[in-house]
Amino acid sequence: MQPPRILESFDELQLGQEFDFGSITMQLEEILAFARQFDAQPIHLDAVAAAGSIYGGLIASGLHTQSACFGHVIRSRIFEKISMGGSGMEINWPAPVRPGDEINVSLRIESLTPSRSKPDRGIVKHCITGRRVPDGQVLIEIRGVMFAKR
Amino acid sequence: MQPPRILESFDELQLGQEFDFGSITMQLEEILAFARQFDAQPIHLDAVAAAGSIYGGLIASGLHTQSACFGHVIRSRIFEKISMGGSGMEINWPAPVRPGDEINVSLRIESLTPSRSKPDRGIVKHCITGRRVPDGQVLIEIRGVMFAKR
Repeated sequence: MQPPRILESFDELQLGQEFDFGSITMQLEEILAFARQFDAQPIHLDAVAAAGSIYGGLIASGLHTQSACFGHVIRSRIFEKISMGGSGMEINWPAPVRPGDEINVSLRIESLTPSRSKPDRGIVKHCITGRRVPDGQVLIEIRGVMFAKR
Repeated sequence: MQPPRILESFDELQLGQEFDFGSITMQLEEILAFARQFDAQPIHLDAVAAAGSIYGGLIASGLHTQSACFGHVIRSRIFEKISMGGSGMEINWPAPVRPGDEINVSLRIESLTPSRSKPDRGIVKHCITGRRVPDGQVLIEIRGVMFAKR
């Protein structure tokens, strides 16, 4: 596990490499604001309804957790010079995120494939993991495919 | 293809059923606001840098397109009475979304599995598709897994 740095090329990456981006906190006000705009369900917005749900209280929209963790990686600027965008993403939410949860964000390089047709780039598969601080419970896994400059 | 209605039970759904939610428009200001908060990359925020990129101009964050299309489905209240939350999602972005793009949002039921262990619910796999108006180009596919009350 290493701190992020601004990468210059696809070729700097190594299979299995892991970066630790520190943590973010999911504040109640941000959870409500995101849900109002993008995921207006009672479990994200209505404390009384949420208390009576299978979750037993308000939880963050999974899309909010995804955006917050992904945004935290982007803000580190690790991929600023090499990213050519992505084509897909796969998300799992093994456990709910509650207001005030602190989430440690890390990223692991899962595969590295130089492009056959375009020698200026490679295909990176990575997994961003959000773990609850302090117990380490995995709250989200985001597997992404990115095209990266060489 | 049918308009959405508020569903009462998992058992109302049919394999292959499709719902049309009408369209949303991806406004420049909303694209910038989302990117500032969750995906601060030059291709989403800096018109000059974006013009020099492989995209030839500003494009929306894929997470924004995902959130906007998903949020549009949720706002229809179709799943309000039956959703017990979801465990995962898979997203593909076959083509970029540009400021002012109008996106038609539809949803197709891809599989329906009654839970073996919990007779009060079923597992729904669905695909939300966002197509550019008027040419029909697919801009996003969101495959999701939802637990639904019976």
